[in-house]
Amino acid sequence: MLRQVTQEIRREQTFVAERKPCIPGYRANGIAVGIKDGVKKDCALIVSDVPAQVSAVFTTNSFKAAPVIIDEQRVADGTARAIIINSGNANAATGAQGREDACAITAAVAVRLGIDEDEVLIASTGVIGQRLPVSRIIDGIDPLVAGLCEDGIADAEEAIMTTDRFPKIEVREVTVGAVPVTVCGIVKGAGMIEPNMATMLSFILTDACIEKSCMDRIFRKTVDVSFNAISVDGCMSTNDTVIMMANGVAGNEEINDDSPFLSVFEEVLCDVMMKLAKAIVRDGEGATKVIAIEVCDAATEEEARSIAYAVARSNLIKTAFFGNDANWGRIIAAVGAAGYDIDPDRVSVIVDDTVLFRQGSGVPGSDEVLEASMKKDEIAVRILLMRGNNSFRMYASDLSLDYVTVNAHYRT
Amino acid sequence: MLRQVTQEIRREQTFVAERKPCIPGYRANGIAVGIKDGVKKDCALIVSDVPAQVSAVFTTNSFKAAPVIIDEQRVADGTARAIIINSGNANAATGAQGREDACAITAAVAVRLGIDEDEVLIASTGVIGQRLPVSRIIDGIDPLVAGLCEDGIADAEEAIMTTDRFPKIEVREVTVGAVPVTVCGIVKGAGMIEPNMATMLSFILTDACIEKSCMDRIFRKTVDVSFNAISVDGCMSTNDTVIMMANGVAGNEEINDDSPFLSVFEEVLCDVMMKLAKAIVRDGEGATKVIAIEVCDAATEEEARSIAYAVARSNLIKTAFFGNDANWGRIIAAVGAAGYDIDPDRVSVIVDDTVLFRQGSGVPGSDEVLEASMKKDEIAVRILLMRGNNSFRMYASDLSLDYVTVNAHYRT
Repeated sequence: MLRQVTQEIRREQTFVAERKPCIPGYRANGIAVGIKDGVKKDCALIVSDVPAQVSAVFTTNSFKAAPVIIDEQRVADGTARAIIINSGNANAATGAQGREDACAITAAVAVRLGIDEDEVLIASTGVIGQRLPVSRIIDGIDPLVAGLCEDGIADAEEAIMTTDRFPKIEVREVTVGAVPVTVCGIVKGAGMIEPNMATMLSFILTDACIEKSCMDRIFRKTVDVSFNAISVDGCMSTNDTVIMMANGVAGNEEINDDSPFLSVFEEVLCDVMMKLAKAIVRDGEGATKVIAIEVCDAATEEEARSIAYAVARSNLIKTAFFGNDANWGRIIAAVGAAGYDIDPDRVSVIVDDTVLFRQGSGVPGSDEVLEASMKKDEIAVRILLMRGNNSFRMYASDLSLDYVTVNAHYRT
Repeated sequence: MLRQVTQEIRREQTFVAERKPCIPGYRANGIAVGIKDGVKKDCALIVSDVPAQVSAVFTTNSFKAAPVIIDEQRVADGTARAIIINSGNANAATGAQGREDACAITAAVAVRLGIDEDEVLIASTGVIGQRLPVSRIIDGIDPLVAGLCEDGIADAEEAIMTTDRFPKIEVREVTVGAVPVTVCGIVKGAGMIEPNMATMLSFILTDACIEKSCMDRIFRKTVDVSFNAISVDGCMSTNDTVIMMANGVAGNEEINDDSPFLSVFEEVLCDVMMKLAKAIVRDGEGATKVIAIEVCDAATEEEARSIAYAVARSNLIKTAFFGNDANWGRIIAAVGAAGYDIDPDRVSVIVDDTVLFRQGSGVPGSDEVLEASMKKDEIAVRILLMRGNNSFRMYASDLSLDYVTVNAHYRT
């Protein structure tokens, strides 16, 4: 039965190009309210027709932005109806005033939609330390609501973009029983946002009916292998937010931990979130390629994760990959410096299926074999430790001249 | 008495320019043996006339290079007579063959000098994973020894340089009792070395007579605030080595923990090592300025150190400083992401005496005040946490276009 269901997944990756995506039971919109230049869209609204279950993960940065602090309180009861998102201003490091401003905006949205204020979530991205232009956003709520439509998610995505080079929307349909269910995700990338920092915002919408605890569990698990397994510049923002809403409008038999449809739904959710996470890396400031780093046979999961991040964050490795150089010397130096008692004679490094370093020694001639592979836009790096059964995979961008130019000279 | 002694310190910073430095009881030399291009010096020898006490600190990288493994064994007995150093090849990731090669070289040095093999230390820096050209180095031992001279330390420094833009030698004289004592240090920088990695080698020579346990203690303490408090690209090498020799030839009254001369000797040692450490940062690949980061009022020393390193390693902060932008948003984001439960409302950020962020909020107009300061070649960043009494200061380089160019395109 499960196998049959799995086969029924229809991949709708061309959906966006063909027609604007719709998620049953949701309306969305994105317009310019004048936070940016008055022309670029900078404010989005997503509304569920009925109260939706909500799961969320926020930045663990101690300097949480005002919208994050408010959302953390509001998602605690497990439901929400609407999310208002602005780009161009992060409303971060703005203290009590910032929280008041965010609440004024969500209150205005609630009044206009005739719902409870606690059902309205808020997210912001952009410059740090400047007050949000509250009145412009509140003035924009009327046109935002008036323009809400079933295929408005593409406009919403456009409005949350900042230095993103391309919109990032993923949509899938899957049948749960005989009932079609849609999962859609949008994201704004971890490029440098306005003069201040990298922020990732993502919103995952589904019309599926799914038990709350089951949804929380698979959402958290999927965040860990997708958005929590990417590194552009190793910097965690004050505003990072991933929110998933499920409004049950599809009317499918409820998915729960015992459901035969759970694994296929989880697979689709994971596919959407992984594609979005990798798109962030691909669209990272100045990124020219994605480095897929997999640490295998580690003693513990923590060890696998730490070593993968040590490699992902190494400027020496990132610049080498930018220069099409699979520099295993830099890779083993990063592995050795990660703080574990690694025995070099048991370590191997494989890049794009070519073994560069085998159990303590470099493999002569392997550089030449790799020359063509290194120009691909995604390159796999596998590090085998022979210490246990734990592995971790993540995605990192390279470090290019453009990264430095964009981040050094933004204000000038 | 202590005050009087302190006043007697003669700073010899112009020493190098005026005449070649000499350290009584040591001879040195540096020549080209053909590891590099046959013209550039690439092999150095330092010899003490009598057995010298030795203290050393090595990389904690799990992938220790062959010379590091050998030296760790040989410094255990606390004395040494000679150090042979090559640049152009790191003898790292070379397995048992690499250790045999290193031992063959030290054995040849020992025979030529008529000393015990265990009294000869070895250090290497350069490309990883290639076998050392042993015969060329051994053939070079005769001319190396023949050319040993009292003012040869400048030639030795030249021979250990790789991409260093300038030689880094510091010499001080201080009187201990009525006896003049010399402390001299040389270093090769943490720029990118050959195609593979950053390595720091430093050798500190003194003719002082000092009790071994006292020397070990102040050496370790000084390494922690100098070479262990710098960050160029956050990458620890397989070859990092700092060796201090003290041969007692000055004939001063032995310095020990109770000596009235201890503090002045320690001050001079610290001055030499701090100057060398900062010179490494200033000469870091592509570095245009030194960022002096001080975290104050932390709950623990570990917290102060971790937060300072989080700031030092942030590519967002490093690129901002390259662009003359004292971006406090990126600084507080790095502080908040460091994993401590920091209360933003108690944090302040001060750059070059201008308060940019005071207890939770940005200070309007502070950017303009800083505009001129940001073009200086050393800029102080102070982060006040108001959580306790611990502080930590370190030095980092900025991240420039040249850094990426040098490290991406080395092989092409």
